[in-house]
Amino acid sequence: MAVRRSTSRATRRTGPKPSAIGTDEPTWHTAITRIQPNEILIRGYPVDELMGRLSFAESIYLTLRGELPTPTIGKLFGAALVASIDHGVTPPSTIAARNVATTGARIRASVAAGVLGFGMYHGGDIESCMRFLQDCLARVREGATFRAAAEDAIRACIDAARRPPGFGHRIHTSDPRAARLLQMAHELELDGEHVQMVRTIDRVVAARPDAAERPWPINLDGAIAAVCGDMGFEPELGNALFLIARVPGLVAHANEERSRQQPMRQIDPRTAVYDGPPPRRLPETRK
Amino acid sequence: MAVRRSTSRATRRTGPKPSAIGTDEPTWHTAITRIQPNEILIRGYPVDELMGRLSFAESIYLTLRGELPTPTIGKLFGAALVASIDHGVTPPSTIAARNVATTGARIRASVAAGVLGFGMYHGGDIESCMRFLQDCLARVREGATFRAAAEDAIRACIDAARRPPGFGHRIHTSDPRAARLLQMAHELELDGEHVQMVRTIDRVVAARPDAAERPWPINLDGAIAAVCGDMGFEPELGNALFLIARVPGLVAHANEERSRQQPMRQIDPRTAVYDGPPPRRLPETRK
Amino acid sequence: MAVRRSTSRATRRTGPKPSAIGTDEPTWHTAITRIQPNEILIRGYPVDELMGRLSFAESIYLTLRGELPTPTIGKLFGAALVASIDHGVTPPSTIAARNVATTGARIRASVAAGVLGFGMYHGGDIESCMRFLQDCLARVREGATFRAAAEDAIRACIDAARRPPGFGHRIHTSDPRAARLLQMAHELELDGEHVQMVRTIDRVVAARPDAAERPWPINLDGAIAAVCGDMGFEPELGNALFLIARVPGLVAHANEERSRQQPMRQIDPRTAVYDGPPPRRLPETRK
Amino acid sequence: MAVRRSTSRATRRTGPKPSAIGTDEPTWHTAITRIQPNEILIRGYPVDELMGRLSFAESIYLTLRGELPTPTIGKLFGAALVASIDHGVTPPSTIAARNVATTGARIRASVAAGVLGFGMYHGGDIESCMRFLQDCLARVREGATFRAAAEDAIRACIDAARRPPGFGHRIHTSDPRAARLLQMAHELELDGEHVQMVRTIDRVVAARPDAAERPWPINLDGAIAAVCGDMGFEPELGNALFLIARVPGLVAHANEERSRQQPMRQIDPRTAVYDGPPPRRLPETRK
Repeated sequence: MAVRRSTSRATRRTGPKPSAIGTDEPTWHTAITRIQPNEILIRGYPVDELMGRLSFAESIYLTLRGELPTPTIGKLFGAALVASIDHGVTPPSTIAARNVATTGARIRASVAAGVLGFGMYHGGDIESCMRFLQDCLARVREGATFRAAAEDAIRACIDAARRPPGFGHRIHTSDPRAARLLQMAHELELDGEHVQMVRTIDRVVAARPDAAERPWPINLDGAIAAVCGDMGFEPELGNALFLIARVPGLVAHANEERSRQQPMRQIDPRTAVYDGPPPRRLPETRK
Repeated sequence: MAVRRSTSRATRRTGPKPSAIGTDEPTWHTAITRIQPNEILIRGYPVDELMGRLSFAESIYLTLRGELPTPTIGKLFGAALVASIDHGVTPPSTIAARNVATTGARIRASVAAGVLGFGMYHGGDIESCMRFLQDCLARVREGATFRAAAEDAIRACIDAARRPPGFGHRIHTSDPRAARLLQMAHELELDGEHVQMVRTIDRVVAARPDAAERPWPINLDGAIAAVCGDMGFEPELGNALFLIARVPGLVAHANEERSRQQPMRQIDPRTAVYDGPPPRRLPETRK
Repeated sequence: MAVRRSTSRATRRTGPKPSAIGTDEPTWHTAITRIQPNEILIRGYPVDELMGRLSFAESIYLTLRGELPTPTIGKLFGAALVASIDHGVTPPSTIAARNVATTGARIRASVAAGVLGFGMYHGGDIESCMRFLQDCLARVREGATFRAAAEDAIRACIDAARRPPGFGHRIHTSDPRAARLLQMAHELELDGEHVQMVRTIDRVVAARPDAAERPWPINLDGAIAAVCGDMGFEPELGNALFLIARVPGLVAHANEERSRQQPMRQIDPRTAVYDGPPPRRLPETRK
Repeated sequence: MAVRRSTSRATRRTGPKPSAIGTDEPTWHTAITRIQPNEILIRGYPVDELMGRLSFAESIYLTLRGELPTPTIGKLFGAALVASIDHGVTPPSTIAARNVATTGARIRASVAAGVLGFGMYHGGDIESCMRFLQDCLARVREGATFRAAAEDAIRACIDAARRPPGFGHRIHTSDPRAARLLQMAHELELDGEHVQMVRTIDRVVAARPDAAERPWPINLDGAIAAVCGDMGFEPELGNALFLIARVPGLVAHANEERSRQQPMRQIDPRTAVYDGPPPRRLPETRK
């Protein structure tokens, strides 16, 4: 995005610096949203023009990246958000949100606590996997084949006794969300070098001698890292995509805790029983 | 939503209570998401089936409400989320997020601080306005006309020297987001009694003698309260919709603060200058 | 505290308002701390003069109230803070902090989540009890005896089927912290009308016909409310005292979770086993 | 601290694992606080016995470390906490807390936001400086003199164009809190090898050719790192000490914002004017 300096100086402070403390410039710049009376421009577009014309996912992409996504990128990006929307009461972030809710705190306090629980071991793999894929692709640019780069990277992980970022899951041995996201990338012809690399790594991982006992399937973080890498997202925003996507789930859990449970209860995540709708399929008209 | 008790007892704890402290039941229930190895059901639907078929906005609706929205409700709900995605550096919540970001903290810590800034005076009007509209509609059900109910409610506000919730704005005298959302509700034939009531109140407000000096236009909170009231949302979730919608904006600001500004700076929201893309329109193909 | 306007105008902004948005004054005021190069004055006192001369508790009192406590008030205030420092893994706020810690998040993120768990039902009783005692004392000022005011207040609670704030506990039937704090107030001759009222209420509560089956002992919140009421604290700061006092406990739990436990574990507060030092007494020299 | 396994098995869960998900042990351990009806033991001591006998600072030390401090360590530790209690409206963490407060949020939400603003560049230097001093002391143990170890470490900082952690300040060229804390350590005969090393580094830093133009005085973080290093604190807890100490200041600012300012204001930290008590000294009886 070309960043232009505003020609208007209407908002520039012209008086003397009010204090000796701080060496900040008299003005500072932001390129996200322009606010004037009765006008809100998101990355230059009137927000009321976006309403009903861009999806929420496309608007998130615009807000974060500065430009509109193509329709296919918008669709794939939206699917990545939908994939992450909730994972039941198994993640500690959700249980943190519920522990705050049980004290009678507001939904927003519960959500903030949940967001703080997206630590290094939870939701943090998207950024790590994006860097991991970039390192592998840097090897390819130096002349290595995809296969050789993947094998070297996995060997390094095994030697260091650590799981490659974006692979393996506490619960799932084959993550249906990852499979679907990578399949969509393929169908939408958006599978670039990051997706190609994550698939190559997956084959190398599956060929390990102990793959049957210790499967390391591509997980959702790995699939999102690959498709967002191909979309050009910077790694640090990777974890933020998970955050954005999971907030609705945190809201649902905080609200359910408040409305269905006694206050000040002792919450054991392992004794939860699902009593929602039984398994069902989308109606034909939504497919 | 019909809530069924799971017939499976696989996850029920059968041993004795481990501690005398606490009188909690051995199991507890959640109706949001069922997790089993290699299967994630959101309100009964396999999440991988939703990906690419439901929009993110529709998936949020499903997660919060338990059932799919109709296509028109999904479209209007998405527009309400898009409308709230950012409001520049003017809100204190955004400045709170930037003050956390300038200390070198992670994006998630910035976002959590921003979410905590959705206090009573900021984002809190959706819930208040939903209750305000419900009170007016209760009067209608008792026999009052919409006009009389609106006039009584506004007179009570004026007598108590307080602004009606959902009306008035720090910056805008005519909020383009509110106008567009209510227009969409009309075009999609989703303008029920809450929308009708908010429009009636708007006319009463505009007829005040001092309306020119102190305009109280319908603001975005008021418009969202009306359309979400007609969709059947409970008031407490009203504020959570704003929270969900604004998180992407908080991420964008936290990320911009980290990438464009010096750490540990003193942030004055009034000296920000917008230097993003100039005003532009959506391409014809997106309209 | 007499609040004086600074005679120095060195830091006053004299230039024009930088923006049309917002109607804020060009300067604003704070009476807590004056910062100048190489000088930090807390409520007027050089902080380096306080170090080693005021206790941390006395400094907290000074920071919050604006004036030094007397030595006896400082001692009683410190005891109220010590009383609240930790309550094991039983409170949801502590479990929220541990759930954040288990994801690999930093101690400060865990503490923030814990602080958010000081909701209405947890730590929120100090403020409620201060208002409750003030209401009873207002009756006394209108001519009622302490006993009559207490009986009326308790009858109102029983009629409304709610526990009086500051009485009753999930775990304790006789809270040793409350007893000790009220005893100290007596020994230090700091038991004013709030303490007298809480004791009167306690006798009324104990005389209920069902007191044996449903004891409502004075809890720590009630005792702190009484002594802080007599010190002249405003009710809203009541809950903040609990917050200040409990933060060290949250730090200890977040740190223990990080150092003793596996990441991403499922935390059931009821299966915790204490394995710290066995019961012990202070050495004679510390008594 | 010797950690003993509880002989009581009363709280051990004996039933089968309630769920196939998770591989957690049936019980887990905590050594901080033992809770039983009518008894609260902090690190083995009845909390009601600590009240009035240990200061709040000593109780914090006990809670974090597991053992009582000696009286002189308690005094020095308390002084480190007092030193950090507030720094006016200059830190971004305080401004984050005020931006949350101005939206009408509760004090605890403001404090949580402030705590989240203790990022890498703010309060994070205690941990870094503790590690820096430990690295220098490791060189000493290998045979280097204090002076040589300090010179090597400072040369490495200069070569890497980075400030040594614990040195330099945005506002102060000679930090009165650091000077006082190190002086107290000396007077209390608690100046061990960490204090000796920080003083040696200070002399090396002051001897740089450009020391006059770019002074790098020992700051409070550096002084706390040295005294807490000599007390045996682990580095990660270093930052938590600052957190514990600053929370009362955050409470004072959140409370002042709520009681003295208009809601939803635009907060410029540089236009604040101090109007509290003028400079004053402790009464003779407190010295």
